[in-house]
Amino acid sequence: MHAPFDMGLIQRGARLRRSPFFEATQRWGARAYTVYNHMLFPINFDDLEAEYWHLINHVTLWDVSVERQVEITGPDAFKFTNMLTPRDLDTCAVGQGKYVVITAGDGGIINDPVLLRLGENHFWLALADSDVLLWARGVALSCDLKVTITEPDVSPLQLQGPKAKPVVQTLFGEGAMNLSYYWFLETSLDGIPVVVTRTGWSGEVGYEIYLRDGSRGEALWERIMEAGKPHGIRPTGPSDIRRIEAGILNWGADITLDNNPYEVGLERLVHEDKPADYIGRDALRRIKAAGVQRKLVGVEIAGDRIEFNTTRWPVLAGGRPVGHITSAIHSPRLKKNIGYAMVPLAHAAPGTRLAVAVTGVDERPAVVVPKPFVDPTKTIPKG
Amino acid sequence: MHAPFDMGLIQRGARLRRSPFFEATQRWGARAYTVYNHMLFPINFDDLEAEYWHLINHVTLWDVSVERQVEITGPDAFKFTNMLTPRDLDTCAVGQGKYVVITAGDGGIINDPVLLRLGENHFWLALADSDVLLWARGVALSCDLKVTITEPDVSPLQLQGPKAKPVVQTLFGEGAMNLSYYWFLETSLDGIPVVVTRTGWSGEVGYEIYLRDGSRGEALWERIMEAGKPHGIRPTGPSDIRRIEAGILNWGADITLDNNPYEVGLERLVHEDKPADYIGRDALRRIKAAGVQRKLVGVEIAGDRIEFNTTRWPVLAGGRPVGHITSAIHSPRLKKNIGYAMVPLAHAAPGTRLAVAVTGVDERPAVVVPKPFVDPTKTIPKG
Repeated sequence: MHAPFDMGLIQRGARLRRSPFFEATQRWGARAYTVYNHMLFPINFDDLEAEYWHLINHVTLWDVSVERQVEITGPDAFKFTNMLTPRDLDTCAVGQGKYVVITAGDGGIINDPVLLRLGENHFWLALADSDVLLWARGVALSCDLKVTITEPDVSPLQLQGPKAKPVVQTLFGEGAMNLSYYWFLETSLDGIPVVVTRTGWSGEVGYEIYLRDGSRGEALWERIMEAGKPHGIRPTGPSDIRRIEAGILNWGADITLDNNPYEVGLERLVHEDKPADYIGRDALRRIKAAGVQRKLVGVEIAGDRIEFNTTRWPVLAGGRPVGHITSAIHSPRLKKNIGYAMVPLAHAAPGTRLAVAVTGVDERPAVVVPKPFVDPTKTIPKG
Repeated sequence: MHAPFDMGLIQRGARLRRSPFFEATQRWGARAYTVYNHMLFPINFDDLEAEYWHLINHVTLWDVSVERQVEITGPDAFKFTNMLTPRDLDTCAVGQGKYVVITAGDGGIINDPVLLRLGENHFWLALADSDVLLWARGVALSCDLKVTITEPDVSPLQLQGPKAKPVVQTLFGEGAMNLSYYWFLETSLDGIPVVVTRTGWSGEVGYEIYLRDGSRGEALWERIMEAGKPHGIRPTGPSDIRRIEAGILNWGADITLDNNPYEVGLERLVHEDKPADYIGRDALRRIKAAGVQRKLVGVEIAGDRIEFNTTRWPVLAGGRPVGHITSAIHSPRLKKNIGYAMVPLAHAAPGTRLAVAVTGVDERPAVVVPKPFVDPTKTIPKG
């Protein structure tokens, strides 16, 4: 048994919410928690590299209840939800999900949730760390559409890694295992209501299991751990090493309200021919026509193994600061320091030589490279 | 020197923002940080009782940069801001602040900031932990008022305790020291631009110093510590013991989006005769007419000293759960366990006997009592 993490290090009073899996994460030895959407979020159970290797070789379970849902229902739910995002939701079937950006009037990115369409007029947005509930309610106040916007009792887990498939097969059968990417299934397990989606934040094979009854967290967690036992399942935090290898962005670090989709390489989520109007359309058209001034690019940073950045490190060109690192980390299998830098267009082309002040002081050569760092079509040694 | 707090216990990557005083709080020995408005928040430098006694006998400095500001400017800023709150801002002069609630369409409380009026059409809202920036921008989208809504570079400190007066006098002179409650002064210190307000979250004499240039955090912090030296100043977290004694509420714990002002005893912030319309007016009128079903009341809990609750403890009447504790803590000078309980009206009258399941399991007698626990008109022993 592990000594449980001292919550007094990050908590005072009952302001921060706990997930239905909180007791389980304490029992299984969570070593650190952060706060995300006003809720405690277990971020590691072991060191980052150990969790990374386990993810790419086996299977891992993450408590991502902090991906709070905004549920949109009512006769105008489709029309309203379609207004929140530049992605054309006409192409989203019931039973299907989409990765979307929620945009402000100026084209800035408010959040980048996975959207699930549970019915013609029934949507969930699985949120990154910002109060889209308040945004959506503010927008709804005076837009004359009939919608109900709530935070339902829904708490996702992620099951990620090459052996996620047999675990899902054991728990939910072939149908769930063979879901196409971004599709989902409403089902139950021992009477526990869940939604199983073919999604994840890892670049590995993965699923999410959205618990629909917060009182059943303990039962669901232990049932999954039991099914995963033959496959060596371990609870971990999300792996920043793996998601950076895959070119996946983290809202709040790599994307903020000050960024538009064109700057951060999410232009595929802006459907320029979308027939319906949406918030930010005029701004995004202007931005596209004028061209962006800066871009989030991949970088490799020379020298010894770096630790994961906890602040924005300066990026320099010709000795002058021109931008900043949003995320940077060491990839053990690539044996390289990799990350993302927000830089002016003049410094954004692959091959551009830059410098990065690691931890703010340790200046090292760096070079702009294409993302993702791990090409999913190529076989890469897994250990 | 203290070993700095291991930020890895609460942080991964550069998602969480740091305050301009972050380095200073590390250097001065912060022992724990929480997250508030997507930002790291130092919550204690010593144990809670030691910080409490220092606050009520001397003077303490708190880094509350997490009170992020929403700034509202533009030709319709007054009209727009007045629409966000049930309090009538016609009575708020330039140079004056007000404690307000920001209400949703259903009368729920989105936030309870201190509002400062810096100009006829220039407002700041010093926020509790929710994204009012998104709410206000959502509301502004379609309301046809000319406003600009931003998060400015403003980071407050609180200077609280009976000896705050001489420290403010040393730093800013008589004018600042003699501010009336909730009024403020725009000034500077060695060229560092600040706003000094006569406000605070302690029930003691106190001021806030809003830094207006994030690059000057180190200089401001050290300047204040220097001026406070003769008065025994110490950096601390906010004191939950003292604020509960004073009947002060903490949004997220004692107030949530599910509560209206009548339930939590903030009816004084609803001006029923306010001439201008505001968000939530119809709902609040209906709620008032129908009467609320539950109330946040003061309680005393029998038995040994309790630790500050980190979850909502059940409140029972006649052996049945009827409500929950939102905050409860031991007051060393009252020598009592005090707190707030959300209970049905039938159990809300002072003198009502209840039970509280301390930490969820340790059932103890409790009684409903009036708030505040410390009557500001009475002299109470300070140590």
